[in-house]
Amino acid sequence: MLIVMTQDATAAQIDAVRERVTQLGFQARPMPGEQRVAIGIVGNDGPVDGARFEGLPGVLQVIHVASPYKLVSREWHRDDTVVHLPNGATIGGRQICIMAGPCAVENREQLFETAESVARAGAVVLRGGAFKPRTSPYSFQGMGEPGLKLLAEARERFGLAVITEAIDEPSLDLVEHYADIIQLGARSMQNFALLRRAGRARKPVLLKRGLAATVREWLLAAEYILAEGNPEVILCERGIRSYDDATRNMLDVIAIPLVKQLSHLPVIADPSHGTGRRHLVGAASRAAIAADADGLLIEVHRQPDQAMSDGAQSLFPSQFVELMGEVRAVASAIGKTVQSPAVAAQ
Amino acid sequence: MLIVMTQDATAAQIDAVRERVTQLGFQARPMPGEQRVAIGIVGNDGPVDGARFEGLPGVLQVIHVASPYKLVSREWHRDDTVVHLPNGATIGGRQICIMAGPCAVENREQLFETAESVARAGAVVLRGGAFKPRTSPYSFQGMGEPGLKLLAEARERFGLAVITEAIDEPSLDLVEHYADIIQLGARSMQNFALLRRAGRARKPVLLKRGLAATVREWLLAAEYILAEGNPEVILCERGIRSYDDATRNMLDVIAIPLVKQLSHLPVIADPSHGTGRRHLVGAASRAAIAADADGLLIEVHRQPDQAMSDGAQSLFPSQFVELMGEVRAVASAIGKTVQSPAVAAQ
Amino acid sequence: MLIVMTQDATAAQIDAVRERVTQLGFQARPMPGEQRVAIGIVGNDGPVDGARFEGLPGVLQVIHVASPYKLVSREWHRDDTVVHLPNGATIGGRQICIMAGPCAVENREQLFETAESVARAGAVVLRGGAFKPRTSPYSFQGMGEPGLKLLAEARERFGLAVITEAIDEPSLDLVEHYADIIQLGARSMQNFALLRRAGRARKPVLLKRGLAATVREWLLAAEYILAEGNPEVILCERGIRSYDDATRNMLDVIAIPLVKQLSHLPVIADPSHGTGRRHLVGAASRAAIAADADGLLIEVHRQPDQAMSDGAQSLFPSQFVELMGEVRAVASAIGKTVQSPAVAAQ
Amino acid sequence: MLIVMTQDATAAQIDAVRERVTQLGFQARPMPGEQRVAIGIVGNDGPVDGARFEGLPGVLQVIHVASPYKLVSREWHRDDTVVHLPNGATIGGRQICIMAGPCAVENREQLFETAESVARAGAVVLRGGAFKPRTSPYSFQGMGEPGLKLLAEARERFGLAVITEAIDEPSLDLVEHYADIIQLGARSMQNFALLRRAGRARKPVLLKRGLAATVREWLLAAEYILAEGNPEVILCERGIRSYDDATRNMLDVIAIPLVKQLSHLPVIADPSHGTGRRHLVGAASRAAIAADADGLLIEVHRQPDQAMSDGAQSLFPSQFVELMGEVRAVASAIGKTVQSPAVAAQ
Repeated sequence: MLIVMTQDATAAQIDAVRERVTQLGFQARPMPGEQRVAIGIVGNDGPVDGARFEGLPGVLQVIHVASPYKLVSREWHRDDTVVHLPNGATIGGRQICIMAGPCAVENREQLFETAESVARAGAVVLRGGAFKPRTSPYSFQGMGEPGLKLLAEARERFGLAVITEAIDEPSLDLVEHYADIIQLGARSMQNFALLRRAGRARKPVLLKRGLAATVREWLLAAEYILAEGNPEVILCERGIRSYDDATRNMLDVIAIPLVKQLSHLPVIADPSHGTGRRHLVGAASRAAIAADADGLLIEVHRQPDQAMSDGAQSLFPSQFVELMGEVRAVASAIGKTVQSPAVAAQ
Repeated sequence: MLIVMTQDATAAQIDAVRERVTQLGFQARPMPGEQRVAIGIVGNDGPVDGARFEGLPGVLQVIHVASPYKLVSREWHRDDTVVHLPNGATIGGRQICIMAGPCAVENREQLFETAESVARAGAVVLRGGAFKPRTSPYSFQGMGEPGLKLLAEARERFGLAVITEAIDEPSLDLVEHYADIIQLGARSMQNFALLRRAGRARKPVLLKRGLAATVREWLLAAEYILAEGNPEVILCERGIRSYDDATRNMLDVIAIPLVKQLSHLPVIADPSHGTGRRHLVGAASRAAIAADADGLLIEVHRQPDQAMSDGAQSLFPSQFVELMGEVRAVASAIGKTVQSPAVAAQ
Repeated sequence: MLIVMTQDATAAQIDAVRERVTQLGFQARPMPGEQRVAIGIVGNDGPVDGARFEGLPGVLQVIHVASPYKLVSREWHRDDTVVHLPNGATIGGRQICIMAGPCAVENREQLFETAESVARAGAVVLRGGAFKPRTSPYSFQGMGEPGLKLLAEARERFGLAVITEAIDEPSLDLVEHYADIIQLGARSMQNFALLRRAGRARKPVLLKRGLAATVREWLLAAEYILAEGNPEVILCERGIRSYDDATRNMLDVIAIPLVKQLSHLPVIADPSHGTGRRHLVGAASRAAIAADADGLLIEVHRQPDQAMSDGAQSLFPSQFVELMGEVRAVASAIGKTVQSPAVAAQ
Repeated sequence: MLIVMTQDATAAQIDAVRERVTQLGFQARPMPGEQRVAIGIVGNDGPVDGARFEGLPGVLQVIHVASPYKLVSREWHRDDTVVHLPNGATIGGRQICIMAGPCAVENREQLFETAESVARAGAVVLRGGAFKPRTSPYSFQGMGEPGLKLLAEARERFGLAVITEAIDEPSLDLVEHYADIIQLGARSMQNFALLRRAGRARKPVLLKRGLAATVREWLLAAEYILAEGNPEVILCERGIRSYDDATRNMLDVIAIPLVKQLSHLPVIADPSHGTGRRHLVGAASRAAIAADADGLLIEVHRQPDQAMSDGAQSLFPSQFVELMGEVRAVASAIGKTVQSPAVAAQ
């Protein structure tokens, strides 16, 4: 940490800062410049809160040097984390994992038809929401536990693993029971109680980036989960809020390689929410894979124009087949392969 | 709702949209233009999801016309909502309500000294966090229930009402028991389970705007609370995320009069989080009051440079006294008064 | 400047950075921490570009300590700059300056009627665009020089000073000739050739903040003007781009006191562009004055619903009269006065 | 255009709007809903400014339906525009065009060494700034005309075409004379005088997206150029401003396929400015190509750590060789090829 003093800070003010540093058990290293003094703090890569200094007289700015997260950082854990699922699928490493399915589970027929089509096309994980966080209290909120049961049935039938969202602690209990991956959505990224509960779960957690979260906040949210003992966290870039309404969200494709440099955790992309428009999902998927994403989470619906939510961004099954071909080609171009259900089912 | 067709949409595509509208129980009103056709939907101010049309062939855009919220809207409830507190203080109407106190309750001495000083200066509500949502798992997380008990004691001693934050359902149970206003923070604005629980509480709820929430999303979050039966919601503008790090957040002062035009709910400002810098809190407070805020939520600490959190934005007690004088002058200039503890205690 | 090394930087990498610092004529001050080394640079408050270090092996981050601007900074020029206009009006100091008029000069009748009404209500500067920067090439682009002549005539008739926008060098030549203040719009804030030309003008310059400019970039743009020899710069906050389309722009009210702390230049607000909605202009004006703005730039049109541009944000003359009363009351509450044409004309 | 009335608009107010529509020469189509009335305007796909209605009593909202640009739109020009350069290189279509070179021309040796290395690696266009728009007046501003002469010499020597930035009209005159493509930077995107001048140039224009420009504004800026008669415009996505400082800008990769759907103009990406960090340029380049970019504009410097500007984002020549391999592989995966200098030189 570095404390920068104002140009007209007095010697007494500088001494007061040094004393505070020492009181807190650290060492102060003054660095006189031509215009102002800065004071380095040594031995502080942990609990010191910069706010303890920001308010002192004569202090212009407090600068943090060390990264605030530890368990998620690649600095301390060089090798990629690879998450293993019961059906043999993996997330992380050289094999790309495709997750697909409807936005929401609506009924058995809709789910099973969609599941069958995505499995045939090459997905190894089935997505489908049973608990839906909705901006309006008047929108469809999901089927709840009966939806989870349908997902579990579909898993057995098609050899897929299942991912579905938990939105609070009761739903997390159920999701942990029925699913293979617990999804935490963008609006829950800083629901710290839920992060802690997910950290005590015995299933991997997929953590979506918040609507306006910085990469640093996202990694700190993951740190909450790891700090409770669950090392199996998958990060998911799903688009951030921007000033341009040309797309629903702005998919921050470059956050994928950036996070993979900062952290050992696997990172996947959600091109469906990331764009909000079906005709952009293909390009977004190719871009994410080319940028080194470990997988994709894609909305597919047997009849998108009948979907109860997010129909505009859901692919038709035939579009998903085409997409899989494109993704395999791009993956191959960068020396990776896309996991196939056969491999996954072994 | 208005469905805009592409310039080259075929007659069959237009018919398909009309049919879909009719199937859903509404009336379609085609509006042929020189370049393209638009189709109005009549009778739809409720459950129709635009996504049901966005995916149809030939559809360029779906435009929502009616506002998506009802209970919070001034269109349906002309008079200002006024929230009454046990100590006689009110929020809403012509009398401004000042809430002040430390960011976090740290111990009895810190809380009581600060509470006494803010009460003397004219605050009628005491703030202080016992449950702190923190970006990092390694930051101070608050005292919990013992902090709430201290707040309740301070209430009795100084004639103040108490506001404090709940971060999950268990803490909300406790906050409902001990405090007079349940605060939901920016990170909880779309924690829908918590909003619903707050809607079943028997205490008023202060709902902060999310970090990157639109005014529409904020009002819909409030709608969740009202829809569960709790009409006493106070909105709090606390700064949104911007691209400029010159301040901690960007206080959206103009959102205050905008929301007061759209909704009957009282709106207050948090100039402490809204700026993140002590030397801007005064100007931000004056601006918010001049823009018609119904109150302020201000961080004051007896020794900000010793504070365990948010020291840089907390006022010294003497600064708060000065601020109160400025706020009274501005309130008077716009024909309002600032509630005094005497009035509140009657 | 501070150069932070990665946790695993080698001694050779650290030496290479020190050597580079020395080569550039500065002194390197290594600051070993427990986890990593940082290197301070002394004597660099000027030309060193951090990019000279960012690319070196082992460098994690380069942190700038000194502010990058000089002439505009209050650190080096404590007293407020006060700009004097020919009609006796001033901008800066304790007297607030109100500028008002139509968005665009449309014809003599429209301009003169509006000018008369704003002068009567208390404005001392007349605004009106003759050169309009428009997003679309198909929108009305302004009357050009004939519009400037009308403005100059109106100045004589009503005792007002005149402000109008220049959009390129030829129009700046004309504006410098006819007007009293040269306005540079948000889209020109980083038109560096135009800034330099304005720096050689013999008239004061009003510099609007760019659509997504940081405070630092805004002050550096002003620095361009001062560096060419023109010390009379007035800054104008006019709203920045945000993710919420509830208003046309987001007026960053708090930037006003912030910039006044960082710089000695006067700062005014444009509540018309800052909100884009007539029914918010009053609250925005009061907030800006309460936050210490030195003046306001307001769109008034004798018939806003007939205006050729920005009709939705222009006030009716009667609304402007009402606004002036509110602004005087708020100004008085913070110990300032609003200049009256009488005072200005003395 | 659609005019939405407030829920309590009177019949007289509705009539007033209809009358205004008729006065302006269009037809009004009222669309009564259950809660409110909307009025469609037919025959208006041109000059009508929505602001003419926004200010009328009883009007809630004005909604634009038709796209505001024409010449750049794919609706009216289905086929891709392909720009041809003197050295045989093309931009647009199935062949990808790579532009590379230093941020700034610094001297003959630096330029020629870099040019030779990028030509060998497969670039067909040489970039290099002679006029640099800089945020601070104290930063290096470029070599000016001598830099352009060096670029022209390098073109002859290495068979490359040349692209370089113009920042005002005098520099545009020179760039038009010496270079093959005139680059307009992000800060000039709404310098409308410069856009018009570029529209009268006899060379292709590369138009970068503004720092916070919407896709719509970007296309309208291009429309300015086409409207003056120059059909050869290349769009360049270079990253937008975001709230996260983890990268210099946020490369909006998905804007590439979106713009290619809306417009027939070629679109390339600048992964160097788009990320600001050398170690992200590779991933960003692959992503842009996978998302259907028609080319890349990349900063390469023979010694990035000695560069006078943007060193942190410039590639070493060996990294550029590696990048070209990756780009060729991804291009091939999506059925495209990367132009080779041999092809270009034919």
